[in-house]
Amino acid sequence: MIDIQSQKDEREIPLEKVGIKGLKYPLTVLDKEHKTQNTTVEADLYVNLPVHFKGTHMSRFIEVFHKHHQKLSMPHFLEMLEEIRVSLQAAKAFAKLTFPYFLEKPAPVSGQKAVMSYICTYEGSVEKNGSDIKKTFMVSVEVPVQTVCPCSKAISSRGAHNQRGRVKVTVQCGPFFWIEDLIDKVEKAASIGLYSLLKREDEKYVTEKAYDNPKFVEDIVRDVYLGIKELGDFPFFSVEAENYESIHNHNAFAYTEFKKQE
Amino acid sequence: MIDIQSQKDEREIPLEKVGIKGLKYPLTVLDKEHKTQNTTVEADLYVNLPVHFKGTHMSRFIEVFHKHHQKLSMPHFLEMLEEIRVSLQAAKAFAKLTFPYFLEKPAPVSGQKAVMSYICTYEGSVEKNGSDIKKTFMVSVEVPVQTVCPCSKAISSRGAHNQRGRVKVTVQCGPFFWIEDLIDKVEKAASIGLYSLLKREDEKYVTEKAYDNPKFVEDIVRDVYLGIKELGDFPFFSVEAENYESIHNHNAFAYTEFKKQE
Amino acid sequence: MIDIQSQKDEREIPLEKVGIKGLKYPLTVLDKEHKTQNTTVEADLYVNLPVHFKGTHMSRFIEVFHKHHQKLSMPHFLEMLEEIRVSLQAAKAFAKLTFPYFLEKPAPVSGQKAVMSYICTYEGSVEKNGSDIKKTFMVSVEVPVQTVCPCSKAISSRGAHNQRGRVKVTVQCGPFFWIEDLIDKVEKAASIGLYSLLKREDEKYVTEKAYDNPKFVEDIVRDVYLGIKELGDFPFFSVEAENYESIHNHNAFAYTEFKKQE
Amino acid sequence: MIDIQSQKDEREIPLEKVGIKGLKYPLTVLDKEHKTQNTTVEADLYVNLPVHFKGTHMSRFIEVFHKHHQKLSMPHFLEMLEEIRVSLQAAKAFAKLTFPYFLEKPAPVSGQKAVMSYICTYEGSVEKNGSDIKKTFMVSVEVPVQTVCPCSKAISSRGAHNQRGRVKVTVQCGPFFWIEDLIDKVEKAASIGLYSLLKREDEKYVTEKAYDNPKFVEDIVRDVYLGIKELGDFPFFSVEAENYESIHNHNAFAYTEFKKQE
Repeated sequence: MIDIQSQKDEREIPLEKVGIKGLKYPLTVLDKEHKTQNTTVEADLYVNLPVHFKGTHMSRFIEVFHKHHQKLSMPHFLEMLEEIRVSLQAAKAFAKLTFPYFLEKPAPVSGQKAVMSYICTYEGSVEKNGSDIKKTFMVSVEVPVQTVCPCSKAISSRGAHNQRGRVKVTVQCGPFFWIEDLIDKVEKAASIGLYSLLKREDEKYVTEKAYDNPKFVEDIVRDVYLGIKELGDFPFFSVEAENYESIHNHNAFAYTEFKKQE
Repeated sequence: MIDIQSQKDEREIPLEKVGIKGLKYPLTVLDKEHKTQNTTVEADLYVNLPVHFKGTHMSRFIEVFHKHHQKLSMPHFLEMLEEIRVSLQAAKAFAKLTFPYFLEKPAPVSGQKAVMSYICTYEGSVEKNGSDIKKTFMVSVEVPVQTVCPCSKAISSRGAHNQRGRVKVTVQCGPFFWIEDLIDKVEKAASIGLYSLLKREDEKYVTEKAYDNPKFVEDIVRDVYLGIKELGDFPFFSVEAENYESIHNHNAFAYTEFKKQE
Repeated sequence: MIDIQSQKDEREIPLEKVGIKGLKYPLTVLDKEHKTQNTTVEADLYVNLPVHFKGTHMSRFIEVFHKHHQKLSMPHFLEMLEEIRVSLQAAKAFAKLTFPYFLEKPAPVSGQKAVMSYICTYEGSVEKNGSDIKKTFMVSVEVPVQTVCPCSKAISSRGAHNQRGRVKVTVQCGPFFWIEDLIDKVEKAASIGLYSLLKREDEKYVTEKAYDNPKFVEDIVRDVYLGIKELGDFPFFSVEAENYESIHNHNAFAYTEFKKQE
Repeated sequence: MIDIQSQKDEREIPLEKVGIKGLKYPLTVLDKEHKTQNTTVEADLYVNLPVHFKGTHMSRFIEVFHKHHQKLSMPHFLEMLEEIRVSLQAAKAFAKLTFPYFLEKPAPVSGQKAVMSYICTYEGSVEKNGSDIKKTFMVSVEVPVQTVCPCSKAISSRGAHNQRGRVKVTVQCGPFFWIEDLIDKVEKAASIGLYSLLKREDEKYVTEKAYDNPKFVEDIVRDVYLGIKELGDFPFFSVEAENYESIHNHNAFAYTEFKKQE
């Protein structure tokens, strides 16, 4: 059968990324507490396409991903990327995996346990240059939090508006860390972290603790920044915070990033 | 050219709804303050399909909707539906239009104005039975609000968790009303309504007023219910409230409905 | 500590549904091939609220759900609902669980295997009336398919527009069935089912087979209807089909339902 | 009243972006055919925050945006950005506006007219450096298209799988152009553009024309690249294409970009 994709292309335009997007699959990742965790993933898998090829062979992405989806630790992720690169005969390969990561979390006073869900991504690339292979790997986690507004608290004679927010941290891998460590740094930087299950004594505790600890999105981004610095010497990281403001129908947002000087 | 859709079908299965979904269009609706308002809509348009036809003629939905999109008052909506029904040679026609509806709203103390956005739907049907035509028309509006938790306030020595929520009211048309009236009833039933623009004096006001007026989702649904009863003698209405809880990563929800005895 | 939720309410308005919405959790369900399957779920859990109570106790939903999420077969689902009803001291309890369900599916010619994902829901209620308990349980599955347009094929001298569509079947439980059976009926009623992995020989096969088997959304709904009838004597079922038309930026849609006469 | 936001911050961390996200508003933009066009927008508005300030004054974003939303041509967009920068006393200001842009489009044979919707974004920044002000402005448009698969056509004895896709072009402003020109270049590069309204003679035309003109996502990205080159000497542009594959439940994707050497 004719192989249209392998035909010569005359347009002289290299493509940065060609591949598949939005593949939904079961996934098994590593977990600090239970060794492995079963979850579900949405995967985007790409390679670059040299100037002289008309197209890429999309089925090979699935063949490689299918082999790896039941053991996707961070080291396996980079091995899978290299296997995709070789299988597609490309110089570069990219992948982005987005999955909920679950942790059992006890309520702060009653100690009752329930599961919290955090959206994680693994995003990376491998690039071959002669005999050299350059790898990058970014891990991000999105942590839902509560924020109490410092301005509202300071100017009001009683109460303070507060709301659910989300904080997303992305770190470029270098020093060893657990996803659990990133979540911990974010929850400590918020007015308070969230819980799936709170009994009345817990609700009293989180209400008072959050009220005593008001934070703007700006504060959270800065405090998470300091927390990540404590965690390790990452070559790059970024922090964004978005508040679903309870007084507005739009959100408050703050973002910053760190890049190590080389 | 052959007309496949009009061919006879032998499967003996009538279809409740056949048509188009997710059509995006500009839309002009009526507005209490400025007479008309320009917005954008997502439209679903259907008819029923009798047992003996293989298919419907989808292009006719667009032909009729295109004629009407620049003047879609509530009475025009029903005229459009009847025109769809006749054009598609059907016994029933259905439509659902979803659009943001905008209101300029002054801040409560400073009086500074900015625009708020509310998601509205017009949903209706016409059905011909002999010489009789039965029409139904439901209008709904989704109003973002703030809710302060009564339990959190009562058990905590300071503060109270609060959050953004959304309240959706649906009324079956009968007595005359404005969308603005529905919004007003919801905002009065919440701890406080939302604003796009609040200066510091406004933020103090809304914080304190909301704190003095704590409401569960259950309370809001009941108080909106009473508000709609005051507004008019509607044959049917429903109210739902959903809180984006600031202490949880899931939402609190309440729903009820009223149906007039015939 | 004061129990605000249990206070007497004077507004005389019963609520149909009160509870939690959008809880994200890991989930284990039954699987025809491997006995159990690990996936992730979004859960909505409600009870009714009698006229005289101010609020419900939201944490109890989580307590019950947490106990059951690692073994949610269809019979367990109803047991969990009854346990929620009793725990919340309510007359009715409702739940809706939405989760991706995964099946390994071989390509039609090469036989190469990869995983397909289907969105399933379990939706049910229990209601106590004196010593009588009434239960309902609906299972739905959304199956992505290909549809080739019969009209386009008939009027064009070459080619035919086709597209991805989705078909959602909902059955009220009665006779025994597997989710796999519903998927099979839908894929047989489409121009062809979808695959995650197709090699060139498979792509030739599915292209030709689909072209030989053109279907409107109307046809698919009717053919799935007949398929479900063959599968068992369900008291109620509904079928909807939505095509992401490749010639339009809106979708084609058809819906019908069956209700057994009592 | 105390101004918490203006207090001195000791953490020594500058923030790249602080502001508001997801503001929904009515919007009036320029239109080649009718001079102006009414639509609706979702706006994100940010400034940078120097190291020594605790927070920004969020209400000022709304004050400035409210003044400009009824006349947002591309030149006005940059004026608004500069006004935000000055009002917030910042060195940089950023904005991203996302809105549907509507065009009346005649069917290719019958000439019948209906409205098509395209998602546009205006994204830009202004940055003051001494007496120098640096401005960037990116315009993007997302165009839905049809793509017929060249491989499927070549290997199959009849038919060819095709599907709806979306192509997003982003250009950095420099040479004058209309959004209409970008849309035209994309629709010419696809197997065929989409229409809201097609009569039978039109459907025959688009089916045959698309079948005669098969394109991979890779082909479309390359052909749009060549089209944008013809349109003007842009300092930067990017093109991405995503196909909602009718044989898979995941999408095919391709991306490339051009950056002028300085």
